[in-house]
Amino acid sequence: MEYVNVILFDNFTTLDAFGPTEVLSRLKDRYEINYYSVSGGQIPSSTGAKIETQTIDKIWNKDILLIPGGFGTRELVHNNEFINALRKLAEDSKTVLSICTGSALLAKAGVLENKKATSNKMSWDWVITQGENVQWIRKARWVVDGKYYTSSGITAGIDMTLGFISDVINIEVARKISASLEYVWNENKEIDPFA
Amino acid sequence: MEYVNVILFDNFTTLDAFGPTEVLSRLKDRYEINYYSVSGGQIPSSTGAKIETQTIDKIWNKDILLIPGGFGTRELVHNNEFINALRKLAEDSKTVLSICTGSALLAKAGVLENKKATSNKMSWDWVITQGENVQWIRKARWVVDGKYYTSSGITAGIDMTLGFISDVINIEVARKISASLEYVWNENKEIDPFA
Repeated sequence: MEYVNVILFDNFTTLDAFGPTEVLSRLKDRYEINYYSVSGGQIPSSTGAKIETQTIDKIWNKDILLIPGGFGTRELVHNNEFINALRKLAEDSKTVLSICTGSALLAKAGVLENKKATSNKMSWDWVITQGENVQWIRKARWVVDGKYYTSSGITAGIDMTLGFISDVINIEVARKISASLEYVWNENKEIDPFA
Repeated sequence: MEYVNVILFDNFTTLDAFGPTEVLSRLKDRYEINYYSVSGGQIPSSTGAKIETQTIDKIWNKDILLIPGGFGTRELVHNNEFINALRKLAEDSKTVLSICTGSALLAKAGVLENKKATSNKMSWDWVITQGENVQWIRKARWVVDGKYYTSSGITAGIDMTLGFISDVINIEVARKISASLEYVWNENKEIDPFA
């Protein structure tokens, strides 16, 4: 079993978190998904849904770190407690998946220095200011650099997570999951209709 | 302001609920989204996320009813308390949106009698037994019959909700929301790659 640790914060984009986790949840024998935040308790999201979380000090098995984006990131880059905790978690995790402006948080934490990464197109000009030494790639559905997977906006996170499954298992399993979601997977990470 | 009342239940498919609500949440001045269940409290979903809900008797403004699907529907069709409450809510609501096997619940409640509807392809044979007088349409990304919008599996709910926005506002607003989600919208409800 591998553990997927999803980090939530006030006003995260709900679909950023639950597109990728829906993909991973289709492999119940392989992945256990848990939700964490700095404060613990219920975290409100973009759709008004409140999600129950544990405090991040409860994370003990640092396999996969998953970090959504959202309007909440605009404040969060100024929250040193969060950014320091995220740096440590990202460094300690075997794989890090970020969606949308989640990569702005990773950039601010310094873990994307000299690495290739992407992000949401609508927030692009702001995101790139969070990590001036990141090799930002604008035209990409998602980008892989070592253990760091970063995706473009929102639904690109579904494509990226299927790409991750394809990398760590194989493309047939990823295609089967995509079909089970009745999702037309953009399989090629370099094809980006929104750049 | 119109109210979107999302009905959750144990083991609903997380993405069924949060694809459509993410779309609706982009029109914050028009839609307020709230989450309900028969029991109230935290409802566990397919991805392990627990969502806070109010009890359904708290629903007072019955504009839009949104009902996801998921493996939990298999038990739920036998829960008379739930099915009776759903029938009343569906009848009283101005618009009803169901995603995936959510239409099996509506069929069981009897509100789709002699109406056109669709559902998830992988659960198709089971779904259609829940409403023998429903005009089930297998090849459709989503189906509209009067106030009832029913979608195919999971991510088809995003397409349907964009279609709903297109119907009640216009297609340009729907396309703008789709682009903000970096989502390739299947605009034509009759094009179904999974039938």
